[in-house]
Amino acid sequence: MARGANLTRLGGFNQTVLFDAIRRSHDGISRVELVTVTGLTAQTVSNIVRRLLDEGLVVEGDRVQTSARGKPRTLVQVQPSARHAIGVHIDPATLTFVLIDVAGQVRHYARQSTPRAQPPEGVVTVIADQVERMLEASGVDRSTVLGLGVAAPGPLDVLEGLLLRPPQLVGWERVRLRAELHARSGLHVLVDKDVTAAATGEQWARDGARRNFVFCYLGSGVGAGVVMNDEVLRGATNNIGEIGNILVDGDAADLGIARRGSLAAACLPQALVIQAQRRGVTTSTVSSDDFVGVDEVITDLCHRAYGGDPDCLRLIDDAAVGLAAGLAVLVNLLDLDRVVLGGPLWSRISSRMLEVLPALIRPQLVVASRDLTVEGSAAGEHVAAQGAAALVLDHFLSPRPSVLVME
Amino acid sequence: MARGANLTRLGGFNQTVLFDAIRRSHDGISRVELVTVTGLTAQTVSNIVRRLLDEGLVVEGDRVQTSARGKPRTLVQVQPSARHAIGVHIDPATLTFVLIDVAGQVRHYARQSTPRAQPPEGVVTVIADQVERMLEASGVDRSTVLGLGVAAPGPLDVLEGLLLRPPQLVGWERVRLRAELHARSGLHVLVDKDVTAAATGEQWARDGARRNFVFCYLGSGVGAGVVMNDEVLRGATNNIGEIGNILVDGDAADLGIARRGSLAAACLPQALVIQAQRRGVTTSTVSSDDFVGVDEVITDLCHRAYGGDPDCLRLIDDAAVGLAAGLAVLVNLLDLDRVVLGGPLWSRISSRMLEVLPALIRPQLVVASRDLTVEGSAAGEHVAAQGAAALVLDHFLSPRPSVLVME
Repeated sequence: MARGANLTRLGGFNQTVLFDAIRRSHDGISRVELVTVTGLTAQTVSNIVRRLLDEGLVVEGDRVQTSARGKPRTLVQVQPSARHAIGVHIDPATLTFVLIDVAGQVRHYARQSTPRAQPPEGVVTVIADQVERMLEASGVDRSTVLGLGVAAPGPLDVLEGLLLRPPQLVGWERVRLRAELHARSGLHVLVDKDVTAAATGEQWARDGARRNFVFCYLGSGVGAGVVMNDEVLRGATNNIGEIGNILVDGDAADLGIARRGSLAAACLPQALVIQAQRRGVTTSTVSSDDFVGVDEVITDLCHRAYGGDPDCLRLIDDAAVGLAAGLAVLVNLLDLDRVVLGGPLWSRISSRMLEVLPALIRPQLVVASRDLTVEGSAAGEHVAAQGAAALVLDHFLSPRPSVLVME
Repeated sequence: MARGANLTRLGGFNQTVLFDAIRRSHDGISRVELVTVTGLTAQTVSNIVRRLLDEGLVVEGDRVQTSARGKPRTLVQVQPSARHAIGVHIDPATLTFVLIDVAGQVRHYARQSTPRAQPPEGVVTVIADQVERMLEASGVDRSTVLGLGVAAPGPLDVLEGLLLRPPQLVGWERVRLRAELHARSGLHVLVDKDVTAAATGEQWARDGARRNFVFCYLGSGVGAGVVMNDEVLRGATNNIGEIGNILVDGDAADLGIARRGSLAAACLPQALVIQAQRRGVTTSTVSSDDFVGVDEVITDLCHRAYGGDPDCLRLIDDAAVGLAAGLAVLVNLLDLDRVVLGGPLWSRISSRMLEVLPALIRPQLVVASRDLTVEGSAAGEHVAAQGAAALVLDHFLSPRPSVLVME
């Protein structure tokens, strides 16, 4: 049921709008420009900027001559150290940590293998300890940290902050991630799906002009985050993006992992390794559930591919055919004009993939006139951790017209 | 870039909120209840209801005793005849017309075969003439008609009101549907994709509790409309929902229509007829591009299926297997908890399909704990035409928090 407008929220909303506009202008923005871009009156802009200055969220920078006539204008810039957020990405192979400032810049970064022998409680302790170490090492004032965002594999219960039973994390079932991390760190904790965090990270890493895109994450699993009309979509239970089972090749052989002929069977790291083993391209006998061992074989295969080994290149090209078929399903269904790819596997194979993917996808598009952009993540390999941190900044700082309506 | 709040829009927004609340309460709602459901003050509710009464949009109805103590309350009801909208659905086989009142009820209905021999201009004339006849026959005051909504097959340019080159409408290319129909009818015209209109129609036909669903349209084509978080999604170019090419059966035979093994090849009417011909279940030699002839064979096959003919039932069951595989792709990708099916083909095969579909879809869902509802359209066979009309009501009458932000 629709709700009436909430007058009491106007001031707070306009403050988030102005702060957002200042934050997005990397080199600063004048009050006159703020009036133009936000549509607010000069008086309102002046009052709110004064408040933001008082709260230390923004600073006044250079005076610049913006036109031939008229007096120079003082630029207002975000104070990057005014607020921070921490992001953690829990991948079956790797834990990635970032601390970002309110300008979205990574101030601190850490990475370690996900402890495999430990029960979930042990992993939670490892995460809490690393967060603590990162806070100390960075020298950031704890009171400026808005919270801790956690990107985790699905399925999960976002509202309760529970990991339900992620297929790749053996023995994890209904792990109370939010409550445990909050108890140990004292921080406000948000838990979200890895692909949703990655899509959010990508939105933050590149401003504007990315209103409709799918973020395809290639790591130990394959998943999709979807941004439509500038909104990160979440689905009925916040578990959007399960694309691994999409059938992409009816004639594929059974690899013994994932569904025969599926997107996952075409482009998971394990799938590449099994293909390499079957074709005699690697002598490694690593098992497909040894994430670290698989990772090492992938490193070797990519190294040889870029050295010109045709068999290794063929492995990547074959994966590209399957990936293109899966991406075409998403683009046709959702009418997207941009595909962004990222994740640990992507960062190894991206240069070859970007050569071949667009020409493989385009003939499969139903709306043939569409301009489709295919590109790698602007946020880089740590996009999910950065996105987890961005979820926290978004939660506290982004303007939402919905707050103008009564709760 | 975010924009500031627009104070001048508050009054208009609150009026749409109240009218929406009254419209959705089928039997009327008291001012006291309106305060509760909208969060507005009693004074604001009273003022706006007075304005709506003056404009003839609502009427006062019965006085009812809503609690043991306290005086009886006067119910406010929408005046159904205060506003109307017309909807047209252009299907390759059939043109469907509805005139609905502001309560969403169908007041007038018409249907005719899509003229096949005529160029697009001839079809536009047929539509304009039928709209005119319907307006006269219904006796509706023309000044109460908010506009004409057109649901058309994609791809289309919604902003310009152009049909680009729908594959099933031979010879149609860049048809200026909105401009032509506006010139002939004098009405405000909105053009949108058939599946988007159908999803909108379904939203209107059932209030509430349908926040995330896919509407799968089965007619001369197969397509999907998506509703997420109560919003009808549209995609980058308003051409969302192309699902016909999704691979659902790697082992399928080539039918000579659609992509081998695709969702379209599994459940289009032409596909059912070709399968029937190949299996000797029908003696008809109708060509698959004869929409009317195909339709007659489908009618015969369904009649025999419901009479107990196992070969005819098997045709529907096989289509259900393909359809289930396609729907599982959508549910897994978008994390939906509801699948709604409709369209002319669906209405013939629904009773058998509803028996078998849920059990075919569920084992394919990745988030296994999800409660998935599979059901037929509440809006019925004419859902796309009703949705086209509902697009007009939505456009003029639905509250949107985004209007509270400066343009």
